[in-house]
Amino acid sequence: MTQSQDDRFMALALMLGRRGMGRVWPNPAVGCVIVKEGRIVGRGWTADGGRPHAETRALAHAGPAAQGATAYVTLEPCAHQGQTPPCSQALIDAGVARVVVATGDPDARVAGRGIAMLRDAGIVVDCGVGEAESLRDHAGFLLRTKENRPFVTLKMAGTLDGRIATATGESQWITGPEARRDVHMRRARHDAVMVGAGTVRADDPSLTVRGLGINHQSVRVVVSRAMKIPATGNLAQTAHQIPVWLCHGAEADVTDWTAKGAQSLPCATASGQVDPASVMEALAAQGVTRVFCEGGGMLAASLLNAGLVDQLIVYSAGAAIGAEGTPMLAAMGIDRLASAPRFVLESVRAVGQDICHIWSRKPEVQRHKNA
Amino acid sequence: MTQSQDDRFMALALMLGRRGMGRVWPNPAVGCVIVKEGRIVGRGWTADGGRPHAETRALAHAGPAAQGATAYVTLEPCAHQGQTPPCSQALIDAGVARVVVATGDPDARVAGRGIAMLRDAGIVVDCGVGEAESLRDHAGFLLRTKENRPFVTLKMAGTLDGRIATATGESQWITGPEARRDVHMRRARHDAVMVGAGTVRADDPSLTVRGLGINHQSVRVVVSRAMKIPATGNLAQTAHQIPVWLCHGAEADVTDWTAKGAQSLPCATASGQVDPASVMEALAAQGVTRVFCEGGGMLAASLLNAGLVDQLIVYSAGAAIGAEGTPMLAAMGIDRLASAPRFVLESVRAVGQDICHIWSRKPEVQRHKNA
Repeated sequence: MTQSQDDRFMALALMLGRRGMGRVWPNPAVGCVIVKEGRIVGRGWTADGGRPHAETRALAHAGPAAQGATAYVTLEPCAHQGQTPPCSQALIDAGVARVVVATGDPDARVAGRGIAMLRDAGIVVDCGVGEAESLRDHAGFLLRTKENRPFVTLKMAGTLDGRIATATGESQWITGPEARRDVHMRRARHDAVMVGAGTVRADDPSLTVRGLGINHQSVRVVVSRAMKIPATGNLAQTAHQIPVWLCHGAEADVTDWTAKGAQSLPCATASGQVDPASVMEALAAQGVTRVFCEGGGMLAASLLNAGLVDQLIVYSAGAAIGAEGTPMLAAMGIDRLASAPRFVLESVRAVGQDICHIWSRKPEVQRHKNA
Repeated sequence: MTQSQDDRFMALALMLGRRGMGRVWPNPAVGCVIVKEGRIVGRGWTADGGRPHAETRALAHAGPAAQGATAYVTLEPCAHQGQTPPCSQALIDAGVARVVVATGDPDARVAGRGIAMLRDAGIVVDCGVGEAESLRDHAGFLLRTKENRPFVTLKMAGTLDGRIATATGESQWITGPEARRDVHMRRARHDAVMVGAGTVRADDPSLTVRGLGINHQSVRVVVSRAMKIPATGNLAQTAHQIPVWLCHGAEADVTDWTAKGAQSLPCATASGQVDPASVMEALAAQGVTRVFCEGGGMLAASLLNAGLVDQLIVYSAGAAIGAEGTPMLAAMGIDRLASAPRFVLESVRAVGQDICHIWSRKPEVQRHKNA
């Protein structure tokens, strides 16, 4: 098998793995392709809810053809007995001859043991094919495993001059339908969608995924120290059907909300606000690997200031509102440009009549590097 | 000659014409290509300062080969005797057989007479080839001729959240060297570069074109009602070498500046500021066809509010400053989104580590339409 063939099959496995993004937590969204004599005989990805794993599904697809085949897996196969036998054992039992792994699983129950099991059984194991892309795709799972926090995407949508509403509070619609559709697609690829109290009050959002033919819904998270929000809006009314989690200060009274089906996640406070690091810890403890924060300006500023933003997605409309408009970001206390958070351009493109620019955490502080 | 060949030669003429942008005012930046038997025998564009005209230079290049040839001209050839004989006469005298014109010249001294002269002399004249592009390229000349104002490009450069300086006033450098180089290139393609008093005070800019191997400099324009700016900075110190024009209220004392070589252009005031329409009228009266406004936020807001921005060029850096930072645009008094100025995306691309997005006036109010 040449290097370029390995790359090609791993690229397919990565593509399959991404189908699970936002739907498989607390597990990683893994992809697997089984190839025999240059022909794909099995394909699989982690199923909704996290089980069965990608390898199990790909092996079931391949059936007896897995005997003597090569399996491409985007993350080290698991080695621990859970609800089902470990995937490494399943690969051994199926008679696979070679396993190509994109990157290792740092989970304490795996951490090299999956690869060791395979090698002990006489299977050839090659690591590192497609590793950079795998690290990106699995960044949420890796961050949760190693730093006890999810991957955070911060979305901001506004005018050319960075405003999200007029002085009178009018905010619908600054960006166009194509940008909003793009946002719904991105919500679906995150385990949780998060907003601050101000956004709930101003917009009464439902934060659901709509208009894409996708049934899966992400968890809706509200961050508010005091949670002084009437439990009467769209979120509260649908909390029994689609999870609503409240990240609030210990002193807040959330009984109105929990009576409607919302879940309480008490968090630490700092400087009169919910501590964003504590929010991330609470979400990670629930198994969340990817969070999509949609503002508002206070929560966005506190995440940026805490260094918790891994990816920034900005939608800019060809409109200008001027200085009385509501800013995208609240006060951040930045006096020196050198202390302003900086991001690296990932991509920029037109989306309908707006533009979408995506920025990533600077590589030198990219925490999952060399996982 | 097939249509596609006509398009191709006109595209070359347009490209040549653009070489004069920013350098040929008060004249239009015209391009001309002379083609005989499918071969280019002459090329020309308006010379620096506006003379000789493109046709004259292309005919000189072609020499006797112009006899029986086709001339492609991006704007109707002139018909009036000026410092030199009219270009229509020159084309007739050279024995050209056919002239292809992109669009008509609305100047009262031309206005169809150039084409009529050619036809009266028995020359075949075809109009409208490459017209849309010609209208764009000549927008400044056409606006000045028809609406007595130049084409206005507004540049804004800031962070993702639309800030141009920190609360302490630190603004250098938010965008990177590639974006700044791009700005210098764009300065060179405009007749005048314009800023408000706040920018002069805050940044002490020189507004020159640097680092591109270009000797030509654009006129520097300062807009300030009271002109209470000490005549000691970079602009004043170089006013004898490179023009500095002051668009100020009638009551302002500009003697310190005029003593240094600056030129006074008194303008009308409105709501305590210089009236931007009056500024444009004053610049048009001086012959200016293209203005590049670099802010600051007050001047930019007043141009947008006056509906005087034809093109918006925004450079966004991957940084966030937050709400205490200086906004790109000052207060605009916009309460309803429906009254916010809206622009249409022209292009977006990465420039170094920043992005550059270019927006145009909405077509329904594009004033040079159907020129």
